[in-house]
Order: sequence, then C-alpha cells, then structure tokens
Amino acid sequence: MPLNAFDNALLNAGVGDTNLMRMSSIVPPNCKQVHEVSLPGGSLIPIAYASYESKISGEVISAAIAVGIPEDPALPGVIMEYEDATTLDVVEDKVRQMVIDAFDYRKRKLKEVKSVGIEHIVKKCGAVFAGAVLWYE
Amino acid sequence: MPLNAFDNALLNAGVGDTNLMRMSSIVPPNCKQVHEVSLPGGSLIPIAYASYESKISGEVISAAIAVGIPEDPALPGVIMEYEDATTLDVVEDKVRQMVIDAFDYRKRKLKEVKSVGIEHIVKKCGAVFAGAVLWYE
Amino acid sequence: MPLNAFDNALLNAGVGDTNLMRMSSIVPPNCKQVHEVSLPGGSLIPIAYASYESKISGEVISAAIAVGIPEDPALPGVIMEYEDATTLDVVEDKVRQMVIDAFDYRKRKLKEVKSVGIEHIVKKCGAVFAGAVLWYE
Repeated sequence: MPLNAFDNALLNAGVGDTNLMRMSSIVPPNCKQVHEVSLPGGSLIPIAYASYESKISGEVISAAIAVGIPEDPALPGVIMEYEDATTLDVVEDKVRQMVIDAFDYRKRKLKEVKSVGIEHIVKKCGAVFAGAVLWYE
Repeated sequence: MPLNAFDNALLNAGVGDTNLMRMSSIVPPNCKQVHEVSLPGGSLIPIAYASYESKISGEVISAAIAVGIPEDPALPGVIMEYEDATTLDVVEDKVRQMVIDAFDYRKRKLKEVKSVGIEHIVKKCGAVFAGAVLWYE
Repeated sequence: MPLNAFDNALLNAGVGDTNLMRMSSIVPPNCKQVHEVSLPGGSLIPIAYASYESKISGEVISAAIAVGIPEDPALPGVIMEYEDATTLDVVEDKVRQMVIDAFDYRKRKLKEVKSVGIEHIVKKCGAVFAGAVLWYE
C-alpha cells in the first residue's frame, strides 16, 4: 500500500514514530541546524516536506527540500519542497532554484542554500520523503 | 514553479513568512475579526484556506472563503473555502451558499456571512489564495 | 458541494465543530481509548483520518482506520487510514493489514488491532470519514 511505503520512508528519515503536522515552510529567525534529534514517540512535529509515491515498477522517483538562510539572522528563511518522477539531480536543482526565487521576490539577501534529497527506483510500491522538522529544545 | 506562485500569493495575503498549518474550519466562540495582525516570522499559524494553482496561460482562477457568524455568540461559527478556474463572483456566491448550508444542517441560526476572495488571470504559472487565520493575542 | 458533504460527515463523527489538524499517525505511548469525549467548539484537534468524497450517484464509498497497540506499552502504536470506492469489509481488511505490516517492518510486537469504518451509498454528493483524535485531558 502507498501509505505503508510512505510510513517506511518516514522511518528511514527518522520521523516514522512521530505525528507529523505538515506546514508551509518558513525557517524562524535564529534557528540552528541539527542533524540528529531525538523526537519523543508520538509527539506532534511541525514539518515541511516533499514526498512522492508510485506504484509503477522501475520508475525513478525523487524528493528534495532546500533551505535558504538569510544574511540577516533576524529575518526568516525559506524552505522549499519538490518531488517528481525523475532523478534527484533534476529535483534538487529545481528546489534550490525555488529558494533563490523566493528570496528574490522577498528582496531578501541570501547567505546560503542547503539541500537534501533522496532518489529511489520503485520495486512494487515505493515512496520518497525529504523533510525539515521544526523542533524546540 | 507552482509552489513559488503559491508562496507569492501567501506573501500578498500577509502570511508568506509564517508556517501555515491547515485546519478544517470552525470559528471558535467569542472570536473577533481583525484585518491586520502582526504575525511573528516563522511562527506556527492555524489557518483555513482556499487556493488554486494553474499553469494554463490566460486562465481565470479564483479562491474565496466565507465565514458564518452565529446569532448565539456562545456557539461556534463556520468557515468554508472554495476555489475554481472561474470568476470570483461565481466562487464567492458558492462559498457563501456553503456557509448557509452548513448552518442549515447544524440547525444553527445565522447572523451574518462575511466573505473575501481574489481573482487572477494566469500569465505563466499562477496561484490564488484566500484564508482565515486563527490567532490568539 | 463536496466540502459540505465532508462537513456533514465530520458532524456525524462528532468532530464537526472543531478545527481538525491532520497528522501522520502514531499512537503515543500510554494512551487510552475513549469513545466519547467533549471537544470544545473551535478547538484545534490533532487527528489522523481517512476520507473519501464522491459525486457519482449510487457509488459505494468507504473509509476506515485501524489502530495497532504494541505489546510493550512504552512503545508507540500505529494508526493506518484507508478509503476507496468499495465496500467497508474490503477497506477495513486492507487497513488492518496495513497496521500488521507497519508493526512487521518496525519489528514491534503487536498486541491488538482495533478498527472502525463507515460505508455510504452516494445520493448526489457524499463523503465518508473515519478518524482517531489525539486528545489530552
């Protein structure tokens, strides 16, 4: 089932035993990136994510997010999400450009774009997932 | 990209630098309407909204919400959302009727329907957005 | 309108006058099941749900959720959702199997699967809804 494939992808991403609440996608000022964080089981997690599910055997599917960090740390940053039935380099290029565009029409100076993504070749029923969790410690 | 068009529409609506968490759509009792509110950058905002994205150049797209206020201020109100590839008058009529219907089958007396919407003619890739934020001051 | 049908289905399920915030679907450790709970009007409710809307007169539509309770009460459980244009027995079998699979690839021992669902024959425009609310008393 697609939902099981999605659940599996969440487990691989380290958020499979939490309750994800999808949000549109801004980085609050004065955030810092952490790569590993222990999320309490069943807790409510605000997250921005890209995901793609497919039942087409052999199909290449990819999901990526990009995060734009502003020069001024007092301003919010931007998270963009993109997913498609194509290779990760295409998806990741696009999602990085979406961040650049978002800073552009905000007339906000961009310090750095970070991105992460995943590519998968579907066996029977597959899902890809890339997300950014907002977490308060 | 559609997500950039959506982001742009959010900026125009004054919620572009926040994290929107979409909710189904009830007005808590004893709310009051404010037209301008300063939302902290990156904060988590519960919102009910309509949105429509299109890549068809020249297409007319519209989104509207309507809010039903009950006669009894101790009862909850209702927010309805509607969007379509048509003119705003059609979309706004429909969303207002949806509120009337929602009060009808709740057997709740309706004091007033407020609505707001937006119409746009797509150039290359466009989005319309209309929302009601729940905010606690 | 589909949104009115959905709203009606929410009212029948007892969550029609709340603001549902959809989440992915884990049972926090040490939860207990309650069948009736009084939710304050307009409050923000984290919920996992299945829903299906149809405008095809005569179509049979069903939605169901299943909850997997782990043997070890300190571990999180899993909620699965499924909906389709078919009878409830098919949908409920599938959603129960999804829970079994989710425990399987978590290598977590399953104590019990609980499920609930609803079947409806569409008149003009119908919706089915089955959900599990997370609520803190």
